[in-house]
Amino acid sequence: MASKLDDFFEKVITVKLSRDRDRDSLDIIDQTLLPGTIKRINLHTKEEIWEAIKKLRVRGAPAIGCSAAYGIAVCANRIEADDFDSFYRTFKEIKDYLASSRPTAVNLFWALSRMDDTVQAHKDQPVEKIKEILFEEAQLIRDEDVQISRNIGEIGFDLLKELKEEGQELGIMTHCNAGTLATAKYGTATAPMYLALEHGWAGADMHVYCDETRPLLQGARLTSFELSNAGITTSVQCDNMAALLLKSGRVKIIFVGCDRVARNGDAANKIGTSGLAIIAKHYGIPFYVCAPSSTIDMDCPTGEQIPIEMRDPEEIKTMWYKEPMAPEAVDASFNPAFDVTDRELITGIITEKGLCHAPYDRAFEALGIGK
Amino acid sequence: MASKLDDFFEKVITVKLSRDRDRDSLDIIDQTLLPGTIKRINLHTKEEIWEAIKKLRVRGAPAIGCSAAYGIAVCANRIEADDFDSFYRTFKEIKDYLASSRPTAVNLFWALSRMDDTVQAHKDQPVEKIKEILFEEAQLIRDEDVQISRNIGEIGFDLLKELKEEGQELGIMTHCNAGTLATAKYGTATAPMYLALEHGWAGADMHVYCDETRPLLQGARLTSFELSNAGITTSVQCDNMAALLLKSGRVKIIFVGCDRVARNGDAANKIGTSGLAIIAKHYGIPFYVCAPSSTIDMDCPTGEQIPIEMRDPEEIKTMWYKEPMAPEAVDASFNPAFDVTDRELITGIITEKGLCHAPYDRAFEALGIGK
Repeated sequence: MASKLDDFFEKVITVKLSRDRDRDSLDIIDQTLLPGTIKRINLHTKEEIWEAIKKLRVRGAPAIGCSAAYGIAVCANRIEADDFDSFYRTFKEIKDYLASSRPTAVNLFWALSRMDDTVQAHKDQPVEKIKEILFEEAQLIRDEDVQISRNIGEIGFDLLKELKEEGQELGIMTHCNAGTLATAKYGTATAPMYLALEHGWAGADMHVYCDETRPLLQGARLTSFELSNAGITTSVQCDNMAALLLKSGRVKIIFVGCDRVARNGDAANKIGTSGLAIIAKHYGIPFYVCAPSSTIDMDCPTGEQIPIEMRDPEEIKTMWYKEPMAPEAVDASFNPAFDVTDRELITGIITEKGLCHAPYDRAFEALGIGK
Repeated sequence: MASKLDDFFEKVITVKLSRDRDRDSLDIIDQTLLPGTIKRINLHTKEEIWEAIKKLRVRGAPAIGCSAAYGIAVCANRIEADDFDSFYRTFKEIKDYLASSRPTAVNLFWALSRMDDTVQAHKDQPVEKIKEILFEEAQLIRDEDVQISRNIGEIGFDLLKELKEEGQELGIMTHCNAGTLATAKYGTATAPMYLALEHGWAGADMHVYCDETRPLLQGARLTSFELSNAGITTSVQCDNMAALLLKSGRVKIIFVGCDRVARNGDAANKIGTSGLAIIAKHYGIPFYVCAPSSTIDMDCPTGEQIPIEMRDPEEIKTMWYKEPMAPEAVDASFNPAFDVTDRELITGIITEKGLCHAPYDRAFEALGIGK
């Protein structure tokens, strides 16, 4: 299976670095064309990288972080400067420019700041050496994300093994896209399934049910695309079919990603997650949040303190559609990007450092999260 | 308000009879053009009526029943026959033809059978007299449906009055379309709101939140269209936003329609209803099913016995969209039209004979339902 999986990652992996003496570039899969067209594009200039982040050709917090890191390394490598000060002046211009591509993406700033820190930490080195160090640092950012996903995947795979019945496909459900396309390699909510393939499971050993995830349809467009391309038995259903699906007994476990987890375990994730968690609890289906420890905010006491972004009503009313699907005059301003799932609805939170159960604040502290 | 409401019903009412010496016709609003275009069309022939039902230009069980009744009266009025036997032979042909337009629509057969019974009950009358009696019977079918909706609306309005706070808009939620467009006049789930207008409430006294209702978007296309046209403050949101909406405290009561209610109170309705009911129970929001007593099936012991129709996966994957929204190879065969809401999730079932609470079997019997 590993070789087929390698082929899949080669094709679908979100962000790669293409090294070439004069034409270094960022090699991304253009997510705006999915699921219809699989097209990789090479981004050579800061303007191309800026546009790709802005237009969501690349999306998902870790994938944006990797893009920014590789991207600024590519651009910095082309700075013509002999002394550090003139190199750093241009580097800062590029950094500020790339940071303006998506002002709400925390990982974008985090990755760019880390690259900036790297430059400053090596200011005594020759400029050409600093350029190489930047490529190494970007690679490190990517490798770290791969390792985080891998650890989450291993813990999730242990849960899958417990539930698997010989000769039966194991029903798994997920919401939105916390997958390969959003990260450096394995995703977070999808990592248990990819790790299962690495450990020798066949695609048909699992059946992953993907919520389509209105309004932006990341589940239908992205998650079902990547899982089916990896050879996993995959279905897509409308979000409002979850209750009947869970009642039917087909789903044994649910994995979702998250945007931010409060100290008490309340977890913000794509809109619809909390409703799914309520329904899962009603039917007794285990519900796991996959959370890199970097998303756990120990300074945020509860979900009440997490602000909910409201987005453009056109996402509900007209985007995607051949014709307007709601009357022009009708309000659709309740278009929250996220909701917060109450900790009491969550069976466990899977971090790369270990599996956490309630009380979450103590479990996080025991793993050294936030220190 | 009544006059403005009359104007609304004049414009939006689903099925009307247009009497005209030689050109009697069925006058319907073409629902396939909503919400973009409000167009009424006149159907003169059995072929036109058949096509309108088949193509869902008219939909909703009671509205289909009214269309079939008016429709067969219009067609029968044009039968050239002097004696009963030759009249009845053609009448039966028309009846069988119209019955083939939508083989799963119970109300279609019910209305056509009732018209057939009417013909047979008056076989001793002159043919011209029978033709007039058929128009009267069709009108009776329509009037009865209006009265049923009105009664349901009055009971629902009593609930609204209890919740209304002076000077505040009352938040109400509904799923799918159990409205004017599905019935003869007031709808079922929408009847409380239309009755509120008749009793002098302003449109701004209420704020109705309509689930868009994937995959066919009846909430976005139809319910938000009719309620906003009636002057009621109306919003549309994606189905998966329900949990956050109910948590926000904006919604004080939920009304949904139903397709079939079992003797124990389990209620089948549009897919997504049961999930909404689970979330409503979690947040303590009253959840009412509006059910004409004809939908209560006392021969069906529980929801377990209600079959769930599975529909075309293309409704999920490509219908409505500019481009395919899920990969062609991905399964979307879990596309249930309905789900069943467990009686324990239902606060009350509103019938035209009265408001029922658990245990429902006894409440139904006490109202003489099923006798």
